[in-house]
Amino acid sequence: MNQIQEVINKLLEKYRSLESGRPASYIPELAKANPKDFSIAVVTAEGEVYKAGDHTRPFSMQSTSKPFSYGMILEDFGRDFIHAKVGVEPTGEAFNSIVELEKHTNRPFNPMINSGAIVVSGLIKGETLQERQINVLARFSKYLTHDMMVDEKIYLSEKNTAHRNRSIAHLLRHFGVFDSDIEATLDIYFKQCSIMVNTVDLAMMAATLANGGKQPITGEIALKKDYVGDMLSLMFTCGMYDSSGEWAYSVGIPAKSGVSGAIFGVVPGKLGIAVYSPPIDEKGNSIRGLEVFKDLSRELNLSIFR
Amino acid sequence: MNQIQEVINKLLEKYRSLESGRPASYIPELAKANPKDFSIAVVTAEGEVYKAGDHTRPFSMQSTSKPFSYGMILEDFGRDFIHAKVGVEPTGEAFNSIVELEKHTNRPFNPMINSGAIVVSGLIKGETLQERQINVLARFSKYLTHDMMVDEKIYLSEKNTAHRNRSIAHLLRHFGVFDSDIEATLDIYFKQCSIMVNTVDLAMMAATLANGGKQPITGEIALKKDYVGDMLSLMFTCGMYDSSGEWAYSVGIPAKSGVSGAIFGVVPGKLGIAVYSPPIDEKGNSIRGLEVFKDLSRELNLSIFR
Amino acid sequence: MNQIQEVINKLLEKYRSLESGRPASYIPELAKANPKDFSIAVVTAEGEVYKAGDHTRPFSMQSTSKPFSYGMILEDFGRDFIHAKVGVEPTGEAFNSIVELEKHTNRPFNPMINSGAIVVSGLIKGETLQERQINVLARFSKYLTHDMMVDEKIYLSEKNTAHRNRSIAHLLRHFGVFDSDIEATLDIYFKQCSIMVNTVDLAMMAATLANGGKQPITGEIALKKDYVGDMLSLMFTCGMYDSSGEWAYSVGIPAKSGVSGAIFGVVPGKLGIAVYSPPIDEKGNSIRGLEVFKDLSRELNLSIFR
Amino acid sequence: MNQIQEVINKLLEKYRSLESGRPASYIPELAKANPKDFSIAVVTAEGEVYKAGDHTRPFSMQSTSKPFSYGMILEDFGRDFIHAKVGVEPTGEAFNSIVELEKHTNRPFNPMINSGAIVVSGLIKGETLQERQINVLARFSKYLTHDMMVDEKIYLSEKNTAHRNRSIAHLLRHFGVFDSDIEATLDIYFKQCSIMVNTVDLAMMAATLANGGKQPITGEIALKKDYVGDMLSLMFTCGMYDSSGEWAYSVGIPAKSGVSGAIFGVVPGKLGIAVYSPPIDEKGNSIRGLEVFKDLSRELNLSIFR
Repeated sequence: MNQIQEVINKLLEKYRSLESGRPASYIPELAKANPKDFSIAVVTAEGEVYKAGDHTRPFSMQSTSKPFSYGMILEDFGRDFIHAKVGVEPTGEAFNSIVELEKHTNRPFNPMINSGAIVVSGLIKGETLQERQINVLARFSKYLTHDMMVDEKIYLSEKNTAHRNRSIAHLLRHFGVFDSDIEATLDIYFKQCSIMVNTVDLAMMAATLANGGKQPITGEIALKKDYVGDMLSLMFTCGMYDSSGEWAYSVGIPAKSGVSGAIFGVVPGKLGIAVYSPPIDEKGNSIRGLEVFKDLSRELNLSIFR
Repeated sequence: MNQIQEVINKLLEKYRSLESGRPASYIPELAKANPKDFSIAVVTAEGEVYKAGDHTRPFSMQSTSKPFSYGMILEDFGRDFIHAKVGVEPTGEAFNSIVELEKHTNRPFNPMINSGAIVVSGLIKGETLQERQINVLARFSKYLTHDMMVDEKIYLSEKNTAHRNRSIAHLLRHFGVFDSDIEATLDIYFKQCSIMVNTVDLAMMAATLANGGKQPITGEIALKKDYVGDMLSLMFTCGMYDSSGEWAYSVGIPAKSGVSGAIFGVVPGKLGIAVYSPPIDEKGNSIRGLEVFKDLSRELNLSIFR
Repeated sequence: MNQIQEVINKLLEKYRSLESGRPASYIPELAKANPKDFSIAVVTAEGEVYKAGDHTRPFSMQSTSKPFSYGMILEDFGRDFIHAKVGVEPTGEAFNSIVELEKHTNRPFNPMINSGAIVVSGLIKGETLQERQINVLARFSKYLTHDMMVDEKIYLSEKNTAHRNRSIAHLLRHFGVFDSDIEATLDIYFKQCSIMVNTVDLAMMAATLANGGKQPITGEIALKKDYVGDMLSLMFTCGMYDSSGEWAYSVGIPAKSGVSGAIFGVVPGKLGIAVYSPPIDEKGNSIRGLEVFKDLSRELNLSIFR
Repeated sequence: MNQIQEVINKLLEKYRSLESGRPASYIPELAKANPKDFSIAVVTAEGEVYKAGDHTRPFSMQSTSKPFSYGMILEDFGRDFIHAKVGVEPTGEAFNSIVELEKHTNRPFNPMINSGAIVVSGLIKGETLQERQINVLARFSKYLTHDMMVDEKIYLSEKNTAHRNRSIAHLLRHFGVFDSDIEATLDIYFKQCSIMVNTVDLAMMAATLANGGKQPITGEIALKKDYVGDMLSLMFTCGMYDSSGEWAYSVGIPAKSGVSGAIFGVVPGKLGIAVYSPPIDEKGNSIRGLEVFKDLSRELNLSIFR
């Protein structure tokens, strides 16, 4: 496995000088990120950790949280319940597009785009925002060996600028997709997006999925094995926004990106991988992250199709 | 492996009585298909054959030919050449939608939809239609142990009714995607769609892909191993039209369907699978085929994510 | 002019039995309207009044208020200011469609659809909702010989159910079209929609426009003559939602409809016309209203093109 | 009426130096037009002619022929027949957009866009292309005092490059909008587009419409009075492509433009106006033409709403 360490060291050097793109600007707190931050982590399904770069730098999960909240809701309510509310079909639309709902069923297309993720967050159990936040943190922490926290400044920054998400939520309400309190639903969604991790944490969460839902170090069941496949197939077809086809073709592993500049991927039975680098392209994907994953997949032969 | 035979026997019985849907009606020759025809075949990567139902009934490949013609063109011209002409991104659009081309690049989204497949067919080498037909048949036959043929009645039926494909071709010409003779390009496309197989043939072609491009029985290289992954990833993200997400979720193997009622799937390293049953749903997928694949995937644990 | 009275009497009888359609259901207070209510009023540019049916029944202006608020803002801020914020181009979209903004300029297409009308309402002067309401009522009342009022029950009913309008407003904020307080903007928009008139009132307002902006009876200038043409051309191309073409073809006079079941039209230099009948079609236009206007136009030769 | 001559002289000078835009490039023969060509003509409903610039320069009618062929078909088949085939509703789409057909009715939106105009041309009577050409020329010539002709080079140039129109025609055939021979239908459409006029001719045709369909000089009925309003209302709502709203607002008279650089307008009861200047904007409208019409409307007070 020294090969992994060598490869990630090499890729960190190779792409450090790639300076296109800028950190997400629409959430003021994210715009403050240092564009030079760059790190790569790989954790095996057995829990071995490989890392390169500023791997302790914390960042908010943003959309990388979406598969994990979907997993929570699958466990809490079962497939039939959640499928009636959110589909599993990719959409050509961008991540924050105003909801185009599926014909006939009136569901958001999938839980990896904002409309679907907002519906999922609305189902997180708890009487108060505080209870729901505690609930999410507890469940997400099972994928790690330590507790997690929300960055309140990022949460507030999201809350104050999320005109588009608010528009989506009101439209979902108009279509009768949900009838819960819109601000309460958005609040827990923003909290979930503001959960902090570092690159090793995110790779460890991915390794837990690679290990069938069982945390490699603690041995705790973070997600029932039966639901891991649901998450991975959704990540594969819908995880990289409208780059999902190119990703499947050139990387070939289930993955999810977030506008904070993080991408994580899962090689079933083998590896969890995470890259963090804030500058993103117009589709919302980390630019260095995309390149690192392409090279990693080729060099370590990770594509599920090859 | 008796298990495979048992399962396909059982599924043939289970879904024989499922009578919704109708054979494709827009091509007169296809409309004549017997809606009761139903067969399942599985071929292992080593060449063992399992079959159930009317497995010798010939049918036209239709869109199941698209991955194979794409493979031909990959071998003949290389990735860079073909990527400049046709993308790898899924589209939410239906299989025969009027071309929506990718922004900036002006390419059809992928080679599994009609616009992309027409561009691919236009690249098939040969001076005359006769030469190009011989070329396609020779290359496709490498996946089998016997020669293949075109059904001229189906070819003519397609040619005479393909107003939509003709519209697509003229529009592609308008956008400068190709400048070849439109009728000549459509002719070879219709010929390719009219190549005849039976269920065992199609499963054998799939098994060749499962075996890394090497025909399990003859040992001939039907497709260079390096390109097999390209085909499989495209089939996975774009093969089942706008049901690709649901398919990835509930079946989880690369597959391609055709309006004649055929679906084939590839379990890399393991199996080729084909189902034939003419009644199709509004998306163009065989109704019994969809159900058989869902059950097969679950019973034999075939999903690449589970 | 006895001819006018005869014609409207006849049309009232003719269409009384036309019973298709239902009152708007998405605002609970509107759903309570009596589907049998039906009245027609015509007022000449000189102030002569012709009326038939329950012409004193009050109803809320809804979208028939949009041309008048646009007129206010034109007077208060001038053409250049408002054109920079809202365009004058028709859109194929339905009246309450989620904003599709004009490329390049980022403006709502026109002030007759909800997105444009919300931007216009946001410009109504006043420090408080109370002041802005007083302002609107004062300006609208200039078109009449008596004061006007808001129905608070309708206002609250709109406010509590306007998830779609709220979604539109948040999206406009996201696009930076305005940065005002969203609820404050929506409040004055809902107030304006809830201003009460009867059929004779609405025909009198129309007659004031037919008279070049000068109230026929009081002689007061309700709108500067120079802006009357702006209003009429917008009503002509954008006033009847996505029926505007059919309307221009078969009626041929500038008009505006509202989901309460009202339609008013202006024959420049000659007549103001209003019809009230709550059952509406799927495009939001009063069904009896459409028929009455078609017949009136033909019988009195009102089309501007004939 | 010396005022008219003064104004057009002045506008010719004013806009001669406006040099943005380029002649249409997609039809090779049109691309050869001299961008400096510029002329204005006004003909009164009584037949008085005012002209400025190179008013004898011939140009092809292109889309300015569409209202006239629609008028022919109205006379030959009546309103009900043609309305069942082509609607009267504006579309936000550009002039040569791939057909978006009306829901339910499956008709092209209106006869001023290519799809609708192709359907209309397909109805022109005649056994052969020759007969149909003679038919169109005879009918169009009634609007003038001399015979008209087709430019065969332009016709062939259109025929050889019209991939988009050919795509539209095949798609219309696919949708069952017509079942005639596609090339024969396109041939008469291209012939009609290639009919030659000069600026005075086009203004004379417009004056005939302003005069209720009666040629002002010969007194011949070019179009039955009853159908003139149909043409004018369609020109008003659909004649200037996706600039129709801006045109209604700032010019306010029924008009039609063509990609050869011509625009003609009709002031009912008063004037026919034509401008010719080849450089067009991205919407296909003559750039100098737009400016001249705006100024003319304001200076001569021509808007139907003012």
